[in-house]
Amino acid sequence: MIYTLKRKARYYETDQMGIVHHSNYIRWFEEARTEYLEEIGLPYEKIEQEGLLIPVLSCSCVYKSPVKFDEEINVSITETSFNGLKFTVKYEVTSATDNSLKTTGESSHCFLDSKFNPILIKKTKPDFYRMFTETFGR
Amino acid sequence: MIYTLKRKARYYETDQMGIVHHSNYIRWFEEARTEYLEEIGLPYEKIEQEGLLIPVLSCSCVYKSPVKFDEEINVSITETSFNGLKFTVKYEVTSATDNSLKTTGESSHCFLDSKFNPILIKKTKPDFYRMFTETFGR
Amino acid sequence: MIYTLKRKARYYETDQMGIVHHSNYIRWFEEARTEYLEEIGLPYEKIEQEGLLIPVLSCSCVYKSPVKFDEEINVSITETSFNGLKFTVKYEVTSATDNSLKTTGESSHCFLDSKFNPILIKKTKPDFYRMFTETFGR
Amino acid sequence: MIYTLKRKARYYETDQMGIVHHSNYIRWFEEARTEYLEEIGLPYEKIEQEGLLIPVLSCSCVYKSPVKFDEEINVSITETSFNGLKFTVKYEVTSATDNSLKTTGESSHCFLDSKFNPILIKKTKPDFYRMFTETFGR
Repeated sequence: MIYTLKRKARYYETDQMGIVHHSNYIRWFEEARTEYLEEIGLPYEKIEQEGLLIPVLSCSCVYKSPVKFDEEINVSITETSFNGLKFTVKYEVTSATDNSLKTTGESSHCFLDSKFNPILIKKTKPDFYRMFTETFGR
Repeated sequence: MIYTLKRKARYYETDQMGIVHHSNYIRWFEEARTEYLEEIGLPYEKIEQEGLLIPVLSCSCVYKSPVKFDEEINVSITETSFNGLKFTVKYEVTSATDNSLKTTGESSHCFLDSKFNPILIKKTKPDFYRMFTETFGR
Repeated sequence: MIYTLKRKARYYETDQMGIVHHSNYIRWFEEARTEYLEEIGLPYEKIEQEGLLIPVLSCSCVYKSPVKFDEEINVSITETSFNGLKFTVKYEVTSATDNSLKTTGESSHCFLDSKFNPILIKKTKPDFYRMFTETFGR
Repeated sequence: MIYTLKRKARYYETDQMGIVHHSNYIRWFEEARTEYLEEIGLPYEKIEQEGLLIPVLSCSCVYKSPVKFDEEINVSITETSFNGLKFTVKYEVTSATDNSLKTTGESSHCFLDSKFNPILIKKTKPDFYRMFTETFGR
């Protein structure tokens, strides 16, 4: 695991099937990603202050076993990559009590300026580029 | 009724009690308010283009009877007022099938500029002021 | 298009990037799917009354162009398939004003009984099986 | 403070005004309430296993100052009361960095059986009644 966020499933995240609604895992991935970026010195706040936006290009989720209300879970980042233009993050949600696998997922992201135009951060933000290359891998 | 929005309760809006989660009514109120503002010539888009923000100062909700998944409901604006500085909207959610009362609520709002400073729209946005006075009442 | 749901992007669906948060598309897919199932005679209500649950096995979303607040959009079902055990739905979100492509996505689903055990609907729910085979294709 | 939940504002909780959407505070209140009930020996899980539902009768929120993305906040329970039939909880959201007041709120709740009929817990659940009386006040 590259990074793990500990969390509880919240009541408002459940649906009438009695389990966490599938859309919320996408939000949990974002929580883990945000925390991880902060940990490696790239807090979103700083990123957006630089006039950079990091939208989601794609995301996917495979549901193995449902998470129930109040369950303690780990939302882990298991793999990252960066090709200079976009970066990809892989996730796993597991039970914090028995470690069983709940969900796997993936998201990919690019860099835009504040007008939503693509940015080549290698040129315009060499510091960010270096940090991404170092931590996200090639 | 001053304005009524027709809507269905969505699956992702339910919780494990098998009813719509109470926080979602606040969102439905916003939907009705937004549509109503648009109808009276004040679409949010235009408002924000003018550099105006309309945050929520307070909101409240009284739950009379639960709304279930897929139920057709009416989200109505029943009363509005405007004192020159802030405006207030009252809401009712009713069943579209038997008209029974589900929820009542209220929200109040003020006007801010894009830096979150209070605005006296009577002076800076006399057109908006006139429209609010005419439609929201004294 | 097999089915199209018309919808507006709501204020509470936006995030601070000024666009609809990416997790909400997954919810829009659910809205379209639910409406479509209802149209072909399989309202969720009826499905759950039969003791059937239809959880999501996987979902994915590719974001082409952001949707902004108050934009009119079409959430379309473009393709479906059913192999007897699970069914798959493909989606497209397009602008209702200029028809431009916003998002594509996919979800797959299976059938469980109320205790979350897999069900062979061909045996236990032949009516449902027939309807799914007819409308979702082989 | 009777109980305080520490939390961060999440990106998906923001709206295009660049602040946490007002509906989310209602969800934060629920998080704090759930954690508090667990702490006093009344985990929701146990409550629902007993066949008890605790719906929300009313809620309200007064917004003093916006919470921004990634801000550390305290969601505190400041006051509780219980009259034998329903209980009320008061909340405060404050900044964890400078302690400034963000929001105040309140919610009230009753007890229902699994068919949504009101329950006199003094009779049917004397243990719960005693715990509520002891911890929530008269």
